[in-house]
Amino acid sequence: MQATLPRRLTAEFLGTLFLLSTVVGSGIMGEALAGGNDAIALLGNTLATGAILAVLILIYGPVSGGHFNPAVTLGFLIRREITPSASFAYVSVQIAGGLCGVWLAHVMFGEPAFTASLNARTGIGVWVGEFMATFGLLATILGCLRYCAAAVPYAVGLFISAGYWFTSSTSFANPAVTIARSFTDTFSGIRPEDAPLFILMQLIGAVVATVVMGWLLQKSSNK
Amino acid sequence: MQATLPRRLTAEFLGTLFLLSTVVGSGIMGEALAGGNDAIALLGNTLATGAILAVLILIYGPVSGGHFNPAVTLGFLIRREITPSASFAYVSVQIAGGLCGVWLAHVMFGEPAFTASLNARTGIGVWVGEFMATFGLLATILGCLRYCAAAVPYAVGLFISAGYWFTSSTSFANPAVTIARSFTDTFSGIRPEDAPLFILMQLIGAVVATVVMGWLLQKSSNK
Amino acid sequence: MQATLPRRLTAEFLGTLFLLSTVVGSGIMGEALAGGNDAIALLGNTLATGAILAVLILIYGPVSGGHFNPAVTLGFLIRREITPSASFAYVSVQIAGGLCGVWLAHVMFGEPAFTASLNARTGIGVWVGEFMATFGLLATILGCLRYCAAAVPYAVGLFISAGYWFTSSTSFANPAVTIARSFTDTFSGIRPEDAPLFILMQLIGAVVATVVMGWLLQKSSNK
Amino acid sequence: MQATLPRRLTAEFLGTLFLLSTVVGSGIMGEALAGGNDAIALLGNTLATGAILAVLILIYGPVSGGHFNPAVTLGFLIRREITPSASFAYVSVQIAGGLCGVWLAHVMFGEPAFTASLNARTGIGVWVGEFMATFGLLATILGCLRYCAAAVPYAVGLFISAGYWFTSSTSFANPAVTIARSFTDTFSGIRPEDAPLFILMQLIGAVVATVVMGWLLQKSSNK
Repeated sequence: MQATLPRRLTAEFLGTLFLLSTVVGSGIMGEALAGGNDAIALLGNTLATGAILAVLILIYGPVSGGHFNPAVTLGFLIRREITPSASFAYVSVQIAGGLCGVWLAHVMFGEPAFTASLNARTGIGVWVGEFMATFGLLATILGCLRYCAAAVPYAVGLFISAGYWFTSSTSFANPAVTIARSFTDTFSGIRPEDAPLFILMQLIGAVVATVVMGWLLQKSSNK
Repeated sequence: MQATLPRRLTAEFLGTLFLLSTVVGSGIMGEALAGGNDAIALLGNTLATGAILAVLILIYGPVSGGHFNPAVTLGFLIRREITPSASFAYVSVQIAGGLCGVWLAHVMFGEPAFTASLNARTGIGVWVGEFMATFGLLATILGCLRYCAAAVPYAVGLFISAGYWFTSSTSFANPAVTIARSFTDTFSGIRPEDAPLFILMQLIGAVVATVVMGWLLQKSSNK
Repeated sequence: MQATLPRRLTAEFLGTLFLLSTVVGSGIMGEALAGGNDAIALLGNTLATGAILAVLILIYGPVSGGHFNPAVTLGFLIRREITPSASFAYVSVQIAGGLCGVWLAHVMFGEPAFTASLNARTGIGVWVGEFMATFGLLATILGCLRYCAAAVPYAVGLFISAGYWFTSSTSFANPAVTIARSFTDTFSGIRPEDAPLFILMQLIGAVVATVVMGWLLQKSSNK
Repeated sequence: MQATLPRRLTAEFLGTLFLLSTVVGSGIMGEALAGGNDAIALLGNTLATGAILAVLILIYGPVSGGHFNPAVTLGFLIRREITPSASFAYVSVQIAGGLCGVWLAHVMFGEPAFTASLNARTGIGVWVGEFMATFGLLATILGCLRYCAAAVPYAVGLFISAGYWFTSSTSFANPAVTIARSFTDTFSGIRPEDAPLFILMQLIGAVVATVVMGWLLQKSSNK
């Protein structure tokens, strides 16, 4: 990373802010227009989220790495590619940026600043979903970085687009996103009491993926 | 820019023309076919707009820079990457091209040449939306140009695709587009009296993004 | 072109065959599943057509140029980048491949081998649409070839995806496709009596684009 | 291939697992949300499958080749680019990974571990569909590998996205996928008794494509 820490943190803040404005805003837009057909709302939500992820990683990735996600920062911490103090700062601004993003989405769509979500997301199914989603997200990032680093922005956007549909939890895969989405009682919300287990499964998924992919992608010494 | 000014202006004219024909035409098509479900109409509108933006910047970008947008031209003027006289000519042909694009969309779909829109788009929510949309668009362009210039066409298409869904204003993010869309009383229109504040917020967003990204993307002199 | 003529013609045949199977087959699939909402059917039709175009040009483009379209072949003939005799052979196999593609789509979906379409597509609006669609398609191909040749497959897929929505004619933009689609009385069909004017407008669009883009994309001798 | 066989097999296992979780999971999600409109469900199913294919080939392709498909492994066996013993191991883990993927999708969505599908997919139309789908898939892979290897992940994702719409069988094009999908009585299932002919047509399509593309893409010795 060439940029100074204040600029890296600004990039993480702006990226997570735009990510959450997009997740929450497109969810509100989709639900408002879709006439009760949640699959159509989810299509719009998916399209917007996948697209903005690719854009944000393209533009902020070269500055900060483009994490926007404590689970990703944890993966790089395990790999010793970010210092503990920098990773603590990263996670802090990711959470702050996510909350600002929710607030701006609410301003745009005329909602109160923050509202506790009533959207229940609990049970074995969604916990397995969050494990698979975060495992897959870290595998996507680490795998692409190893062999095709320029594809990371597109691959992350595509993986989360798929995750919105193939996991029962719609792939939050991100503790900062989970915290922020507990503050919106709209399409994309999650009840605050359901957030901790989502975050736990995300962190486990990130650790397991970092270990498995570290072995899988090692440089070979023999055939 | 290697091309002569007449060719650069022709590229800006053709690009903005096709952009507006696509925005307005696909809006009419979507609304005509979607049976009252505006989310489905917006999906078609989004797909078409994002796709044509990528194509137009791919083919006309190397000739003129592929602005098609006075807010983008303003950003490059602030950065002294275009002269004031050229930027004035750019903005003129962008507006003219946009109007021709609306007219051609109307010809294709059997509408009168121009009609004043009755589509109200006003209030704090959409003004914040236009600020965020134009800030994000300029951040996308300036960020990609700095680190991954070949990705600009795709990144712009993806950002506007997301913007159609995450901003309450559906991300006009372009004064020439705003003027042109005030002349169509169809899906994508905007009341003429609502256009000035849209344009104001777009120009503010462009200036702020140019300043912020200029700082964020500077070459580092120390860690 | 490095390949022998028989292999180039095989590539044109297979490419146009798969293109028409996709256009016609995805139209039938969309209409069958969409429950009368033509916008949803058109979304599926668009997605499939744009995707297959990118793929076919990626794989057959290096063999034959990946025209699959007499209007494109005409453009290259005007630019003297293909001989008259080869272009005649190209157009012949494009038409034959297109008809085989329609037949295979009909076999897959249990339709009679060929049926004359009853789908009226006539009037100033759709004729202007076909002119704009083919002008834009040739501009896309010639513009990308000049500055970013590797992007041609994606740009063509994206342009036609946009065209399905922004032109009132849904952007046939291809005489071989027009002929083939007059033989299917399904979603994507066109009445045989409407085909000649579509083809005329396509050829005019191709000629005008070749001339305009030839001037626009010339190598500059002075600023 | 540089990686050791255990790592190659792990890559094939994980890739096929995520592929099937995505195919089956997004089918369940689509059907649950789409309110009976199968075209909308298929849009979500298509988006997720195309996106995950691109991602999985990006990250596991450099390790194992990214087959996830016995028909693809057969093509490389015919071309003597994989040994018979390795190809046997590949096919075994592909089938095992596919079954685990279905099981995980069922866990996520609260379905029983495995259920025999009741979804009839039989007749000339779908058999021709599977032949065309697998021919096209192999042509996509072999064609891209010859001229634009870096595009393989995207091309495969795009081809299958198109195939979901243009073939009446929705393009399984993969014997491991076919076996796995016979164990799910959901949107994407296939009756066990219909699986063998699907697989037969897939293998024929793969062999024919390998032969045809081998001739088409040979290095030219003369014009």
